[in-house]
Order: sequence, then C-alpha cells, then structure tokens
Amino acid sequence: MKAHLRPVPLEKSYRLLNHGPTVLVSAQDQQTTGVMTAAWACALEFSPAKVTVVLDKATKTREIIEHSGYFALQVPTLKQLKMVYALGMISQRDAPEKLRQCGVELFKMHDADIPLVEGCSAWILCQLISEPHNQQNHDLFIGKVIAAYADERVFRDGHWYYQDVADEWKSLHHVAGGHFYTIGQAISVDDLEQ
Amino acid sequence: MKAHLRPVPLEKSYRLLNHGPTVLVSAQDQQTTGVMTAAWACALEFSPAKVTVVLDKATKTREIIEHSGYFALQVPTLKQLKMVYALGMISQRDAPEKLRQCGVELFKMHDADIPLVEGCSAWILCQLISEPHNQQNHDLFIGKVIAAYADERVFRDGHWYYQDVADEWKSLHHVAGGHFYTIGQAISVDDLEQ
Repeated sequence: MKAHLRPVPLEKSYRLLNHGPTVLVSAQDQQTTGVMTAAWACALEFSPAKVTVVLDKATKTREIIEHSGYFALQVPTLKQLKMVYALGMISQRDAPEKLRQCGVELFKMHDADIPLVEGCSAWILCQLISEPHNQQNHDLFIGKVIAAYADERVFRDGHWYYQDVADEWKSLHHVAGGHFYTIGQAISVDDLEQ
Repeated sequence: MKAHLRPVPLEKSYRLLNHGPTVLVSAQDQQTTGVMTAAWACALEFSPAKVTVVLDKATKTREIIEHSGYFALQVPTLKQLKMVYALGMISQRDAPEKLRQCGVELFKMHDADIPLVEGCSAWILCQLISEPHNQQNHDLFIGKVIAAYADERVFRDGHWYYQDVADEWKSLHHVAGGHFYTIGQAISVDDLEQ
C-alpha cells in the first residue's frame, strides 16, 4: 500500500476534503490509540492549510486529541465501508478492543507520531490549534495541516481520479445510520459548453 | 417548484448537508441581495441544529450576512451546474448584476426575510450566531438553523432519494476550478451482509 503513497503539497490538501467525504479521525496519546468515523469534517483555510472536525464529548478519540495535540483525518473507501460504519458505532469506552474488532491496521509516516489507517485513499496530519471556546461550546476542533499524503492510484497532481479506478476506491458520504452514498461521476463546466 | 417544497424537522436538517455537497449561500440586507457558492459548509450540531460555513473576507455575501444576521445554505443540483460555477467565480463587487447574469431566481418562505434560490433540492435558513473571533480569524460563520425545507421529489422522510430520480437532481461536490463530482450510488451496510 505505502508504495503508492505520495505527499500532497499542503496548499493543495484542501482538495482531499473538498468533495465532502466522511472521514476517519485518528490520534494517540501515551496510553491509547483511537480511531473514529466523522461526517462533519471540512477544509477551513488554503494557506496555511487548516481543517475543522466536530468531535462529540463522549468520544475517546476527542479525549486523546486533547491530550496529544495531534490528529489525522483520512479519507476511507467503499472497500472499507464495514469498518467505517463500525468505527462510528462502537465506542472505545465500551470496547477497549475496538480497533482490533473493526479490523483497523495502522502505520506511521517517518517522524510524525500520529497513527494512520491502512487502506485509505488520503491522509491529512494535523496539529491541534487549541481553541477552548470552540472545543467546549461547539465540539469544534481546528487543525493546522502539517503533512498530507494520498494514494497516487486515486489522487495525483492535485486531482481525484475516481473515474479511472474500480468502485472500491470511491469515497463514502454518510447520510444516517448504515446508509451512505459513494462519490459519483466527474463533471466539468467545460463539458456543458461543448 | 414550490408545490414540492416540504418542511424538514430542524433536528433532521443536518442530513441535508451530511453527504458534503457544495452549497449556495444567500442573504440580503437593506441594500443588496447576495448569492455565492461555497464548498466549505458543514453541520455542527444536531439539536439545536447548527451549521458552519467559511466565507472569505472578499465576498459581498459575507458583508451582507454581517449586516443582516441571517443567511441560507441551499443544496444545488447538477441541472444548475453552470449557475453554481458562475456564482463561485463572479464577485458581486465587480459585477453588481451578478445574480441576473447567473440566471438566479429567488423566492421567500412566509415570514423569513431570507432570499432562497429557486430550483435547488434543499434550503437551510439560519440565524447568524455572532462569534467575532471565528469570523475574523478563521472566516468561519456559525448559523443556528431556524427552518429547513426540501423538494420532496428528492428528499423526504429524512432521506435523500437520488437513486430514484433523474441525474439532473444529483448534488454537486466541488474539487477545484470548473471540476466537480456528482453524488453517486446509495449503499447500505446491510447490503454487505446479505
């Protein structure tokens, strides 16, 4: 998998989230590694690149991020649907073995001490910008992007190539419960004018 | 069009944004009506329902929202692609006739003084929650949802029915420039287990 992993320039990292995919949020502190599903993640700024993610107070991953000050957002694929759903339904507070149960395999990139989920299509590594008001009142966390990577088979040169790969690569867009949509067809404004 | 418009319960309004569509942001003050395209909009809370949207300081629509304290997010469709692109490219500061040029038709719902764009699939009417720090430092605006509507042909009973309607109804997911994806296929975790 990592043979296909390529760095994405920070100022282009917003494109990994721009189409609104459901993401996995991962983090670790000295005790625990947490991974959870989140539909409410969004780009916030081009340069310096920043992102937002909403993390409920009940989640273990939020607590870990508050300890460590670092997290990653990653874009999972249709192939990972069952895992994505389970990571959103099961809480690590009830099930300490959650990650094993869900079949999560983790890796790290060189010097960053942030756990990343194998098999995703893109990874955005963030340093938490501490904003107690937003975190406490809105469950809203802001991250400064410190590195980004994508699997070159589906994202390269600043663009997604969903149309050129098997359906199993498609991003997931959560509706509610076990219901999702996959990303669909590429369309360009230029196509309309031809 | 409005014959098919149905209210969406506020606590279900997050489902209109949960799949990450690119939205149109609309607002009016005593002088001007503004409509712009935004890819960075997101649900923030279930109940009381809240949303976030990132609005650059250069935009006229942001200035209008700061004056009026109200705005709407609406989910445009593939049929509106050309308009959606133009509303993101043209600034009302340079082109006072922007809305006419882009072919925008507006309507209002009973007592709310918020302009809504005809032909979209869903509308989320919001009262600005004034947060000067977020607005100034992050261009981040938070809205409390005060009403929501959807076209029952594509969203009803709390669910999107993209799979049952013509492609022209599909939501748009912006990548960059004139490049978008449409929403794709519905998939349920239950499907995997059968």
